[in-house]
Amino acid sequence: MRAPEGDLAEHAADLLERLRARQPRVHCITNAVAQTFTPNVLLAAGAIPSMTVSPDEVAAFSARADALLVNLGTFDAGRRAATEMALAQVTKDGKPWVLDPVLIDRSPPRADYARSLLAHRPAAIRMNAEEFATLSGGGLPQDFAASWGTIVAITGETDIVSDGSRTFSIANGHPLMGRVTAMGCSESALVAAALALEPDPLKAVAAAVLIVGVAGNIAGEAANGPGSFGVHILDALFNLDRAALRARARVSS
Amino acid sequence: MRAPEGDLAEHAADLLERLRARQPRVHCITNAVAQTFTPNVLLAAGAIPSMTVSPDEVAAFSARADALLVNLGTFDAGRRAATEMALAQVTKDGKPWVLDPVLIDRSPPRADYARSLLAHRPAAIRMNAEEFATLSGGGLPQDFAASWGTIVAITGETDIVSDGSRTFSIANGHPLMGRVTAMGCSESALVAAALALEPDPLKAVAAAVLIVGVAGNIAGEAANGPGSFGVHILDALFNLDRAALRARARVSS
Amino acid sequence: MRAPEGDLAEHAADLLERLRARQPRVHCITNAVAQTFTPNVLLAAGAIPSMTVSPDEVAAFSARADALLVNLGTFDAGRRAATEMALAQVTKDGKPWVLDPVLIDRSPPRADYARSLLAHRPAAIRMNAEEFATLSGGGLPQDFAASWGTIVAITGETDIVSDGSRTFSIANGHPLMGRVTAMGCSESALVAAALALEPDPLKAVAAAVLIVGVAGNIAGEAANGPGSFGVHILDALFNLDRAALRARARVSS
Repeated sequence: MRAPEGDLAEHAADLLERLRARQPRVHCITNAVAQTFTPNVLLAAGAIPSMTVSPDEVAAFSARADALLVNLGTFDAGRRAATEMALAQVTKDGKPWVLDPVLIDRSPPRADYARSLLAHRPAAIRMNAEEFATLSGGGLPQDFAASWGTIVAITGETDIVSDGSRTFSIANGHPLMGRVTAMGCSESALVAAALALEPDPLKAVAAAVLIVGVAGNIAGEAANGPGSFGVHILDALFNLDRAALRARARVSS
Repeated sequence: MRAPEGDLAEHAADLLERLRARQPRVHCITNAVAQTFTPNVLLAAGAIPSMTVSPDEVAAFSARADALLVNLGTFDAGRRAATEMALAQVTKDGKPWVLDPVLIDRSPPRADYARSLLAHRPAAIRMNAEEFATLSGGGLPQDFAASWGTIVAITGETDIVSDGSRTFSIANGHPLMGRVTAMGCSESALVAAALALEPDPLKAVAAAVLIVGVAGNIAGEAANGPGSFGVHILDALFNLDRAALRARARVSS
Repeated sequence: MRAPEGDLAEHAADLLERLRARQPRVHCITNAVAQTFTPNVLLAAGAIPSMTVSPDEVAAFSARADALLVNLGTFDAGRRAATEMALAQVTKDGKPWVLDPVLIDRSPPRADYARSLLAHRPAAIRMNAEEFATLSGGGLPQDFAASWGTIVAITGETDIVSDGSRTFSIANGHPLMGRVTAMGCSESALVAAALALEPDPLKAVAAAVLIVGVAGNIAGEAANGPGSFGVHILDALFNLDRAALRARARVSS
């Protein structure tokens, strides 16, 4: 029997091959800070980003995308209107969407809005521990995932990915990931790309989280600080292969 | 008789010298994604960017600029209002402007808007093949350029630059250019800078396209992936010289 | 008696230690161009950025921040509303704020707005010489600082930092700083972080300006152009230590 570590590394390598071959389109409603790094992460990994938040055309872009990201890092009326239209479109089309409730622990109205979006059934929610505590009001990731029928991905020193019944712990990544803005936002976009390709949502999310973590390990070894880390992780995503995923994956389940 | 390849490389080297000496101001109405890379490309090449899209002051900035870029990558009511004011100002002042109809193949309302802007007589339009097909409804770049009295620049593996009667093909550039967001958007801004300095618009546009292409070749040789490519191309634009342009230009006409 | 050069280098090293230990939160109302580089500079130096400009939550973020930056590089109605709310919050809470009157020499309405903000008593104003001339209508930095009860920091080849009675001249930095967009904007954010920690505002501002200048020297030696400079200055801020500040500070007072 193959160990689960090995399985997830293989799944991640398979997913990366499909990403590069099929180049899924991910429409991103995201914050102003992440508007450049997010598409660069998607492009480095093989996906095709689009980024408009204009209510005049977000439905058209969502209709042509394979998955949607809704990131709350900028919380304005225009983006909320765009989000509503985009969610209506992807729900109608049966496409997956990912919620990234950025910094909801710092803004009560943003937290309320994040909670209201749960009714739209995100395929996955990626966040840090503080954001999860605010969103869930306490409790275990497993319980939250089960009760909302979603995949919960909580990233930090060790990443937790759970669908309620199965849970992966992924101990890849690097401390410099916390020193580059929009790193988590971009990871959420890659989760959306993975969900566009892989029908098992737990596997999709865990594989995307592992891919970013291993790229972070490689970048961390090459970097002299957060500036070069931000450059190297894009190169690492572009060059990542099965051998590196196998050798570096630190997964338990 | 000098070959056209040699001519364009010399024109591009002359243009670069003028850019660095005269530092033209380019006002950019561009999308959120390109708001950082575009001014960094202009600064690396020697031009001075301004980027506000606020209707309250876009006329003031346009009046102090030497050329204008209108990029449709974010299509919102505020930017459309700003575009109208900026176009009125540069038209009054007889300054050149460049249209970049980003992703109009993905959004019918954006495509309609791009077509409506043709009446304001852009000096040049830079786009990819899909965007050109949507804008023109089919047909040859030469015919479209001739009928609208503009320079058409279609960038891709081989770049085409035409005024309807003369056409350059430029086979520089690097595949990683498609893996860094805002690369084309920034190239359009450099086209605007070139038009501010060079009275022959075909020469201006073709020289700017060649400059970016040669910088892309240099960056591609130094890069390990899209992250380092985005860094190296800025360094390459900053350091580019006549010798490199002469040695690397792959131009036919 | 220790020379003032030595003093400021020591203050800057102390400040950097406190920044890394205490990680002050800086809320930034800044322009679209600076939305990525500014938080990356703060993160590299040890501070925690937040960047929303949404009127719906800017008060909540300001209330949780230790200092505020108001940068005028994008001058729109939404940001002006956000600025009013954020200033009301930090004024009530007695927290410092920094004004960065970007390019007010290019836009009369933006200059009027900058002047109107002086009544809200910024702890410091960071700008270049042209912006200072527009803001002050002529006169000496010392006089302007004294009459408004603020710290004036004018950055350029030599940086001037004055509270009206004491003035530092800092001759660090590197010419490539002018070739990377948002460099000054980010420096203003670091000034805000310093003011959150250091009760003597002149010392805070001068130390922050010295830190950026020395990081610029280090980055300039490593860089091949503006692309790599922008990467290296983040690494340099992350790795900066007392020895480098002592060895490289070029301060007179």
